[in-house]
Amino acid sequence: MRQSPVLPILQIVHRPGILDLSWGHPDPAVLPVAALRRATATVLERYGAEALTYGAERGPGPLIEWICTRLAHTDARAPEPTDVVITAGASQALDLLCTLCTTPGDTVLVESPTYHLAVRILRDHPLELVAIPADANGINIDMLETLLAQLARCGKRARMLYCVPTHHNPTGSCMSLERRRALATVAAEHGVLLVEDDVYRELSYDAPAPPSVWSIAPPGTVARIGSFSKSLAPGLRLGYLTSDALLTQRLIGSGLLDSGGGLNPFVALTVAEVCASGDFDATVAHLCATYRERRDALAGGLRDHLPPGCRFTVPGGGFFQWVELPEGIDAGALLPHAEQAGVAYLPGSRFYLNEPRHNTLRLAFSLYPPHQLIEAARRLGEAITAVA
Amino acid sequence: MRQSPVLPILQIVHRPGILDLSWGHPDPAVLPVAALRRATATVLERYGAEALTYGAERGPGPLIEWICTRLAHTDARAPEPTDVVITAGASQALDLLCTLCTTPGDTVLVESPTYHLAVRILRDHPLELVAIPADANGINIDMLETLLAQLARCGKRARMLYCVPTHHNPTGSCMSLERRRALATVAAEHGVLLVEDDVYRELSYDAPAPPSVWSIAPPGTVARIGSFSKSLAPGLRLGYLTSDALLTQRLIGSGLLDSGGGLNPFVALTVAEVCASGDFDATVAHLCATYRERRDALAGGLRDHLPPGCRFTVPGGGFFQWVELPEGIDAGALLPHAEQAGVAYLPGSRFYLNEPRHNTLRLAFSLYPPHQLIEAARRLGEAITAVA
Repeated sequence: MRQSPVLPILQIVHRPGILDLSWGHPDPAVLPVAALRRATATVLERYGAEALTYGAERGPGPLIEWICTRLAHTDARAPEPTDVVITAGASQALDLLCTLCTTPGDTVLVESPTYHLAVRILRDHPLELVAIPADANGINIDMLETLLAQLARCGKRARMLYCVPTHHNPTGSCMSLERRRALATVAAEHGVLLVEDDVYRELSYDAPAPPSVWSIAPPGTVARIGSFSKSLAPGLRLGYLTSDALLTQRLIGSGLLDSGGGLNPFVALTVAEVCASGDFDATVAHLCATYRERRDALAGGLRDHLPPGCRFTVPGGGFFQWVELPEGIDAGALLPHAEQAGVAYLPGSRFYLNEPRHNTLRLAFSLYPPHQLIEAARRLGEAITAVA
Repeated sequence: MRQSPVLPILQIVHRPGILDLSWGHPDPAVLPVAALRRATATVLERYGAEALTYGAERGPGPLIEWICTRLAHTDARAPEPTDVVITAGASQALDLLCTLCTTPGDTVLVESPTYHLAVRILRDHPLELVAIPADANGINIDMLETLLAQLARCGKRARMLYCVPTHHNPTGSCMSLERRRALATVAAEHGVLLVEDDVYRELSYDAPAPPSVWSIAPPGTVARIGSFSKSLAPGLRLGYLTSDALLTQRLIGSGLLDSGGGLNPFVALTVAEVCASGDFDATVAHLCATYRERRDALAGGLRDHLPPGCRFTVPGGGFFQWVELPEGIDAGALLPHAEQAGVAYLPGSRFYLNEPRHNTLRLAFSLYPPHQLIEAARRLGEAITAVA
């Protein structure tokens, strides 16, 4: 008889005794199970087999219409339906853009630090990645222009630029409106496709999210990637992209979308129902209240427990708190000590393409309730103090 | 106010008065709506939020275990769990293989004729496609060896070979066991990764499907792509891949699967429940009975109504009936006449990489009930007779 090991269902691996703030995962307790149960039942009742067959390549009409209406409220400009494509998550949208909008050897610019798994997706394609430094206000536009000029002198052109302007992963920062405008202008001038990872827009805790770069850029300059992974549930694998009709036409004309009949049609119709029923609004309100409290608890814990010389800026949204340790403390070398003290994180070096700042780390405040985040901060402070 | 055109939900476009046998789509009437309603409710009840968060990169354990057990019955060899990866449909599996297992400029062999949308997916990647002729028994192995030798003389190597050995799209043929063995041997000798599109295995109407090439080839030679699109519902966008542990490790180690937490975890857990409950078996039995009757009705209609000189072989499974018209009749030129008579199909030329046989056409018998298939055959016969 064949051996049957018990195979996992989940990605996360829990380590006993460790508050593991390395996972950028939602707390299972806040995922909208009841809303999904209602929506799946309603969709199969209302649409029957139409919910289960090959869907429109662009994605189902009801979800596209809802996204257009939603972005009219949460962004500075609403897309037309022909600007939108429904995708199987944000990662899949990025993968699809790499496949369909680049040619082998193309230069792709990546702000640094940046979302480390986006870099992994980019590296799975035959692209040359080049880092652009970013600070608390986002990409350094002067350095971007210098870099584009350098590339031009080598007869190269940057084809794409990947960035997370809003509630950045890992730093939590928001690009200033001035930089967004400048970025849009420079990208348009140089024919660089901006890939704007905008998955945290709905998770804004203090003020509405700033206008997306997509909303203020000339048409065709930006492909903005949105997602229901943060605002509803990551296991749904549902996201979307807004660009202009020319780029979305390239995507829906691809072999993958034609052959599959859209990228995730049953789930997309289900999410359209979650949105239409009011459950999306209620879920996002609950998530924002929950994560705001957690962000504040972690920030309070860090203020109380980190030794002098540590610096952090409290983010206005998203999942992540970025911490700078005193110069000379390497977050990678600190990690075993932190784990000994019962806390884990991702060393900041993971998020740099090159020239990492070793005294940085990323804490996710999404997974644990407030009292555990405060305890995690205490343990982190203890570990830093021990090695300092 | 923004205009709100009514956007479609479905891919299919119905044309009044035309029996459109060009769509390789299932009849909505046979899709398992009730089974999916039960399974979604059960999964959200049993797993709660675990059904909605980031899943294991390989896919959820219960579905992988079930696939291993199922293939022990429907194929000549069962995979180990480490041989399997759950994908977001067969098309997505092919796309992923192109991204992760080829380098730009690689030669990819494609049997000809073949599934036209797979060619579109391959062409969205920077690959050089080369056709290998196939007959009613599958790929011509002598010509394959000749071609591989020619490539070697040019200093080239075929990296991948895409084929549909079982219930072929578009021809409905099954590759003989002898050819499967020879294909596996030649591919292993030359280091060619065989991509075996095996999505019709469950839809075998007369006898069990032959052993997959994967099941009889040396480990690492074949990536077999399976799907729930034909056996359950295409809108689920769920498939799987069986290969060896080395290749699946490359896939689950990709940025896309790591970032997303598997490719379609909520749907995959739901389908695992459909399978465990017995609903999968019941659905496949119902589908086979339904499609067998339709295949026979269409074959009977063609026998009765096609003029002399037309040839066809009744397929043992799948969705498609391939028809050869008398030499000199171009199926593309015939199509407007056929549509005038109220029937449509895909001209066979669509399925050739080059040197198409213009006197061929593909009829899908999946979408219409028997009496309409007979009527479609009558209309087709009328149109052929009119132009002959």
